[in-house]
Amino acid sequence: MFKKNHFLILSILIASQFNAQKMQNLAKYVNPIIGTEKMGHTFPGATVPFGSVQLSPETDTLSYEINGKYNPDVYKYCAGYRYEDKTIVGFSHTHFSGTGHSDLGDFLIMPTVGKLKLNPGTAQHPGSGFRSGFSHQNEKAEAGYYQVKLDDSNILAELTATTRVGFHQYTFPKSDDAHIILDLMSGIYNYDDKNVWTYVRIENDHRITGYRQTNGWARTRTVYFAMEFSKPFKSYGQKNYDGKQPYRGFWRKWNQDENFPEIAGKKIRMHFDFDTRDNEKIQVKMAISPVSQANALDNLQKETPDWNFENIKSQAQNDWNKELNKIAVNTLSENDMVNFYTAMYHTFINPTTYMDSNGEYKGLDQNVHLAKDFTNYTTFSLWDTYRALHPFFNIIQPKRNNDMVKSMLAHYDQFSLKMLPVWSHYANENWCMSGYHSVSLIADAIIKNTFTGNPEEALAACIATSNKRNYEGIGEYIDKGYISAEKNGTSVSNTLEYAYDDWAIAQIAKKLGKTDVYNEYVKRSENWRNVFDKSIGFMRPRLSDGSFKREFDLLSTHGQGFIEGNSWNYSFFVPHNPNALIDAMGGKKKFGENLDQLFTMHLPDEFFADTEDISREGIIGGYVHGNEPAHHVAYLYNFIDQPWKTQAQIRKILTMQYQARPDGLGGNDDCGQMSAWYIFSSLGFYPIAPGSDDYSIGSPSVKNAKLNLESGKVFEIEAKNQSVKNVYVEKVELNGKPIKDFTIKHQDIINGGKLVFWMTNKAKK
Amino acid sequence: MFKKNHFLILSILIASQFNAQKMQNLAKYVNPIIGTEKMGHTFPGATVPFGSVQLSPETDTLSYEINGKYNPDVYKYCAGYRYEDKTIVGFSHTHFSGTGHSDLGDFLIMPTVGKLKLNPGTAQHPGSGFRSGFSHQNEKAEAGYYQVKLDDSNILAELTATTRVGFHQYTFPKSDDAHIILDLMSGIYNYDDKNVWTYVRIENDHRITGYRQTNGWARTRTVYFAMEFSKPFKSYGQKNYDGKQPYRGFWRKWNQDENFPEIAGKKIRMHFDFDTRDNEKIQVKMAISPVSQANALDNLQKETPDWNFENIKSQAQNDWNKELNKIAVNTLSENDMVNFYTAMYHTFINPTTYMDSNGEYKGLDQNVHLAKDFTNYTTFSLWDTYRALHPFFNIIQPKRNNDMVKSMLAHYDQFSLKMLPVWSHYANENWCMSGYHSVSLIADAIIKNTFTGNPEEALAACIATSNKRNYEGIGEYIDKGYISAEKNGTSVSNTLEYAYDDWAIAQIAKKLGKTDVYNEYVKRSENWRNVFDKSIGFMRPRLSDGSFKREFDLLSTHGQGFIEGNSWNYSFFVPHNPNALIDAMGGKKKFGENLDQLFTMHLPDEFFADTEDISREGIIGGYVHGNEPAHHVAYLYNFIDQPWKTQAQIRKILTMQYQARPDGLGGNDDCGQMSAWYIFSSLGFYPIAPGSDDYSIGSPSVKNAKLNLESGKVFEIEAKNQSVKNVYVEKVELNGKPIKDFTIKHQDIINGGKLVFWMTNKAKK
Repeated sequence: MFKKNHFLILSILIASQFNAQKMQNLAKYVNPIIGTEKMGHTFPGATVPFGSVQLSPETDTLSYEINGKYNPDVYKYCAGYRYEDKTIVGFSHTHFSGTGHSDLGDFLIMPTVGKLKLNPGTAQHPGSGFRSGFSHQNEKAEAGYYQVKLDDSNILAELTATTRVGFHQYTFPKSDDAHIILDLMSGIYNYDDKNVWTYVRIENDHRITGYRQTNGWARTRTVYFAMEFSKPFKSYGQKNYDGKQPYRGFWRKWNQDENFPEIAGKKIRMHFDFDTRDNEKIQVKMAISPVSQANALDNLQKETPDWNFENIKSQAQNDWNKELNKIAVNTLSENDMVNFYTAMYHTFINPTTYMDSNGEYKGLDQNVHLAKDFTNYTTFSLWDTYRALHPFFNIIQPKRNNDMVKSMLAHYDQFSLKMLPVWSHYANENWCMSGYHSVSLIADAIIKNTFTGNPEEALAACIATSNKRNYEGIGEYIDKGYISAEKNGTSVSNTLEYAYDDWAIAQIAKKLGKTDVYNEYVKRSENWRNVFDKSIGFMRPRLSDGSFKREFDLLSTHGQGFIEGNSWNYSFFVPHNPNALIDAMGGKKKFGENLDQLFTMHLPDEFFADTEDISREGIIGGYVHGNEPAHHVAYLYNFIDQPWKTQAQIRKILTMQYQARPDGLGGNDDCGQMSAWYIFSSLGFYPIAPGSDDYSIGSPSVKNAKLNLESGKVFEIEAKNQSVKNVYVEKVELNGKPIKDFTIKHQDIINGGKLVFWMTNKAKK
Repeated sequence: MFKKNHFLILSILIASQFNAQKMQNLAKYVNPIIGTEKMGHTFPGATVPFGSVQLSPETDTLSYEINGKYNPDVYKYCAGYRYEDKTIVGFSHTHFSGTGHSDLGDFLIMPTVGKLKLNPGTAQHPGSGFRSGFSHQNEKAEAGYYQVKLDDSNILAELTATTRVGFHQYTFPKSDDAHIILDLMSGIYNYDDKNVWTYVRIENDHRITGYRQTNGWARTRTVYFAMEFSKPFKSYGQKNYDGKQPYRGFWRKWNQDENFPEIAGKKIRMHFDFDTRDNEKIQVKMAISPVSQANALDNLQKETPDWNFENIKSQAQNDWNKELNKIAVNTLSENDMVNFYTAMYHTFINPTTYMDSNGEYKGLDQNVHLAKDFTNYTTFSLWDTYRALHPFFNIIQPKRNNDMVKSMLAHYDQFSLKMLPVWSHYANENWCMSGYHSVSLIADAIIKNTFTGNPEEALAACIATSNKRNYEGIGEYIDKGYISAEKNGTSVSNTLEYAYDDWAIAQIAKKLGKTDVYNEYVKRSENWRNVFDKSIGFMRPRLSDGSFKREFDLLSTHGQGFIEGNSWNYSFFVPHNPNALIDAMGGKKKFGENLDQLFTMHLPDEFFADTEDISREGIIGGYVHGNEPAHHVAYLYNFIDQPWKTQAQIRKILTMQYQARPDGLGGNDDCGQMSAWYIFSSLGFYPIAPGSDDYSIGSPSVKNAKLNLESGKVFEIEAKNQSVKNVYVEKVELNGKPIKDFTIKHQDIINGGKLVFWMTNKAKK
C-alpha cells in the first residue's frame, strides 16, 4: 500500500528533482488536439507517458459493420474522437494514437442529469440519448489533462490519468436526478458480437470491479477494471440489451435491473444515481489491469490513494515535463515549439505499459507472467515505428526501448507460433501490415548497445521469425529470392521489406561474430534486386516464371504488389544499400531525376484514392509522407551528391506536413512514427536504415537543441543563421570538426558533444 | 514437481497403509451403471472421490434449445449418458451426478479411424459423424475405471482419472488415418450461444493447452485445460463452425485450419492425426483447472507424471477402496452389497474439488484465491444434500465436510450478494431450487463439532443470508410470517423451508449463547403454522389478505405453491418440530391416518406428470421418494408411537427404490442425497432434522456394519436375525443398554460403540 505520507514525501522528492534539473514547463507547448481532425487519428484526452490508460472523449461509436458488411465510416473513429463532430458520447479509457485500424475504447463513462437515458442517442438527435453537445470553445486539451463543458447537462467534465488509472472529475449542476453511466457495450471498431463477455461486481456503494472481454482486432482480449466514486451512489441499475438468457434462474429470482450487485452478459449498460448540489464535484477513478480485478484494485490504490484530482493532474503534467525536458529546443516560432513538443508528446504515448504495478501481465499464451527485470509494453505498430520511433527511443529513451525489446522477446517466447510481433496489442498478435520489422528494432538496439538482454537469444528469435515459411510468402522468398505476384497481393513490398529486415539480422550476426549467419542474411538482403525491373528502372511485381507482370502501373497502389505505397514510393526502398539501388537505377544522375520527379509529379485523383490513411495534404508531388514507405527518401539526395535537395525537401516536409492545427497531420500519426520523423528531421539528422549506426544529415528547423541523455551527457545542436528561408546547410561541424559526408554516428550523439550547422538561403552545390 | 521416485515411494506407502488397515476390495461392489437409465441421472465414467474430473461417455449432445425454445428431451442427458442409447459421441471430463438440470460436459474427446469426420453425426445415422455404436456387452464400468469397445472404429476406449486429470487409453487397429477429436463445442445442456469463448494453444507435437468459457447454468464459467498425448501427432487441424470473423487479419495471413497452433473462437472442433499399428495404445491425459492453463499443466504434471495407465487406474481404485472401507457392511445378498457400495460411491462424487494442486481457485468475485487451510469444494446441490448427504459426511467424512463449510463461507465472503450458496458450481450461484439450506449444513457441522472455523462468522453469514429481503419472498416472510401466494409461485414450500432453516440458525445461536438471536429465529421457525390450513389439516397457499387460496388441489404440484412436491408430501415438512405438526394435524391418530394414506393412496397419472425428476417407480402410493421433500416422512411414525410402520416403510423404500439395475434409481440421485438416504436407512437410523444431534431409528437392512471413524474409533451395527422378512425391530440396544425412544445421539456414534438390533417378522406394537 502506498501510504499517504509516503506519497507526499515522494511528491516532494520528485518536485525537488525537477528543480535540480531546472525543468522547464514544456508541457505547455503540447496541443493534443493536433491530429484529431481528418487523418491524424490522434486522441485529445489525458494520458501519461507510455501509460496503460488513455482517457479520452468519444464523439461517436460507429459500428465496424452494418448488416454484416464493413462500414467505411468507422475508419474516421480509430481514436474515438473526431474534431469535426458536435457531440460527445462519453469518455473511455483506452485508445490508440494515430492508427489506421482500431480496437479498444473500453469502459465508456458519461455523466448526465435528468431523466435517465441508457442509450447513447445519435449525433443528429443527441437529446434522444445520453450524449451531449459540446463546442471547442469550451474544451481544453493539455498533456495529461482534458476538460470539456457538456452543453446538454451543463456538466464540466475534467480528465486526468496515472499510468493505470483514469481520473474523472465532473462538476454537476444541482439535481436530484444525476447519473454516471458506465457503458460496457461501447467500444472502438465495435460490432454486434465484439463483446465476448462483460462482468460487473458492485463491491459496495462506491466501488465496482469487473471486466470486458472482446473479440476484435485483438482476437482474445480481456481488460479488467476497478472503479471508485468519490461519493456513494444512492442507487444503481443496468440494462442488458442482449435478448438471450437461456437459463432464467437468475431472472426468475431477482430483479437484476435495479440495485443488483452481480451483472454479467454481452450487452450491458449501467447507471449510478446521485443527488447533487450546485457545482458539486463527483470524481471517478477507473483503474485497469490485464490480469484481474484484484490487480486493477491494487493499481487503483497504489496510483491514486486519495481524491486529490489537482494533485494527480499536476503529477501527470510533471511526468510529461520530465519526459519532454529530455530535449530542450528553441525554434523560430511559437508554432514550431508547439509542433515540436506535440510531436514529442505523440512519440511518448505508444507503446503502452502492459503490466500491473505488482509486475504481472498476461502473456500471448494467455497465462499470467511476472516481469522480473523489465516493464512489459504492448501496442507495437512495428511496420510504422521501426523506422524512426524506436531509433529515437534508442537515443532519448534507451531504458524503455530496451524494455520494449524485452517485451517483444517475451512475446516471442510466449507465442505458440514462436514469432516476434508484427503488430501486437494486449497479449495478441493482430497481424496487421507486413514485414518482420521486430528484427530491425532488435538489431538497432543491439548495434546501439541499448539492449541488455541475451543477444544470442534475440538473434535466434529473429532467425526463427524470418524463416516462418508459411507466413506471407516467406517460404517462396527464401527459395526463389522473391515472392511471386500470383501468390501474394503485396509481393513486391513484402520482398523489399524482408530484404531490409534480413540485412538488419545480418548486422546482429556480424556483431556477434556469426559469419555464417551474416553471410546468409546479407545474401538474402540482396533480394530487392529480384523485384527490380531494369528495363523500366522500377520495382515491379514478378511472376513465378521469372517474368515481370505485364499489366502494371507505377502510380497505382492496389493490386500492384505493394501495401500502402505505389511503385514510385517503394522503388526507393533499399534503405540498407542506397548506393546499390542508385547503380541499379542507372547511376546518380538518373536516380536524381527520379527523385526530382517523385517530389514534383502530380498524383492524379484516381491514384490518390488508392493511397490509404492520408489526406490530400499528406503528399508532396508523388511523395507520400502521410504513409511510411518513403520516409527515408528525401535523405537519399545525400547519396548522389545533391545534399541541398535533401535539405530543401526536409524543410518543406517539416513545414507542410506538420501544422499546429487540428487537421495539421497529413496522415495517421501511426503510434508516433510520423512524429518521430518530425523530431529527427527538425534536429537535422535521420536514421535511414535502423540497424546501422549512421544518421544522414538533413536541415534542422530548430535554432538550437539540447538532448539530455539518460547517461547524464548532453548532445547539443545549434543552427547558426537559422531562418525560414535559410533552409540550406553551408557547413556542419561536430565538436568543431567539419563533417564531409553528411553522416554522423550514433556514438557521436551518445558521447555528448555539439553539432553546429551554418544555415544559408543558398544551396551549396 | 512430483518426481517419479517419490511417486513410487508414495505408492508403496499407500499400499502398506491399506494393508495395515486390512482394506477390503469393496470397490468391486460399485456399479456405476446403476442410475444411468431413466431418472437416476448418474454417469458411468471414471472419477475419484470428490474429484474435479468426471471422465465419462456422452451418448448424445442434445441442444437445450430448438429454435429458441426449451427442448424437453435435453433433460434425459443431464449426465451425458443414457443407458438406453446405442451410440457414444465421445468422452468428456466434467459431469454432475444425479442432477435434474445440468451444465458441464467439457472437452469431449473421441478416437476414430478412417476418413476424418468432424461432426458428431446423429444417433440414427452414426456413420454420418464421428460417433460410434457400442453395446453394453462390450462395456465395463467400475469405480475409477470405464471401458467400452467402439464398434464403428474397433477402438477399445479405457478411462481412468485422478482428482484433476482424466486419463484415456485408446487401443487402435492398424491405420494410417487415425484421429483423436477434441470437440470444444460439445457440452451438456448446450445451446448455440453457450460457448462464450474457447481457446487452444498447441504447445508442441504432443501437448496442448486452452480453455472453454461458457454462459449456462453457471453464468460466467471458465475451465482451463492442459492435454498431453503419449505419442506425437503427425498433423492436426480445426474447423471453426462460427461463420463470423469480423477482423480477417488472421485468416488472410494464415491457413488456420491445418497445423496452426493458436486457435480461438466460439465453435471449434479439432483433430489430431496419427498412424497406428495394430493394437497400438495411444494415451491422452487431460488436466483441468479453474484458474489457468499454467495451473492445469501443473496439475497434470503433479498428478500424472508418467504414462502408466494401469498405475493411475489402480491408484484411483485404491482411493475408492480407502473411502469405501470407512464402512464395512455385510448384507443379506450380493445385490445389497452392490446397492450399498454403489450408494456410498454416489455419495462421494459431489461436492467436487474446485482447487488446483497449488491451492489456487477462482472465487465468486472472479478473482483467484489461495485456499490456505482447507480444500475448496464446489457443486453444492443444497436443497437436496443438506438432508442426509452432509449429515452422513458429518459422521464419515467430517474433515471434508468441514472444508465444504469453509468453501461455503468463502463463497459467502467472495460473493457480491453476501449470501451463502443455494445451488452453486464452478464459482457461480445458479439459484436453483429454494430455501437457504446452507444454514442447515452449517448448523449441523457446528452442533456436531466438525466445524473448525469461526462459528460467530458462520452465524453472521447465516443471519445475513436469511435476511435478504429481495430474495424469494424473504422480506414478506419476515414481515408477515409467510409468503403470499400472489407474489411467489412456491410460496408454501418456501415458507416451510425457511421455517426449518430458521430453526437451524437458532441452534447455532443457542450453542453460541446468543439468546436474542435464538429467540428471534425460534420464533421464525414457527412460521410453518402460517401456511397450515387447520380447516383441512394441510399446508395450503395463503393470500396476502390472510385467507387461504380457494382453488387448491392437494395432489397437484404445479401452481399450488410448492416446488417438486405436492401438499400431501410437503404438509409433513416440519422436520424440526414433528410433535407440534402432529398436534396441528389433529393429534397422533389423525396424523397416523394421514401417513397411512400417503403411503397407500393412488396418485393419478395427471398428478404424477406434475412430479418432476422421478419415474413411476419413484413413488410409493402418494409418497414421492424420488424427490426430496418427504425423505424424512417415513420416520415420522416413530413420533406417533407406531415405529413398526416406520420400520416396514423404510425396508419397503430400501427395496423398491434402490435396485442394482441401470434403471434402479426411481428418481434423480441428486448429487448423492438419494444415496445418502439409502446408507443411513440401511444402517438403521436417519437424521430427520440436520442441526439436531438426534437420529431416528428405522430398520436396518444390513446384517452388520462397522463405521471406521476418522478419529480411529469404530461404531458397530449389528442386526440379529436379519432377513428379508424380518423387517421389524424387536428391540435395540446401544452398548448393551436398551433404547426406548427410537433415538440415538450423534455423540453415541462418534464415541464409538455398538448398536444392536433384534429383528423379527412381527410388528412390535
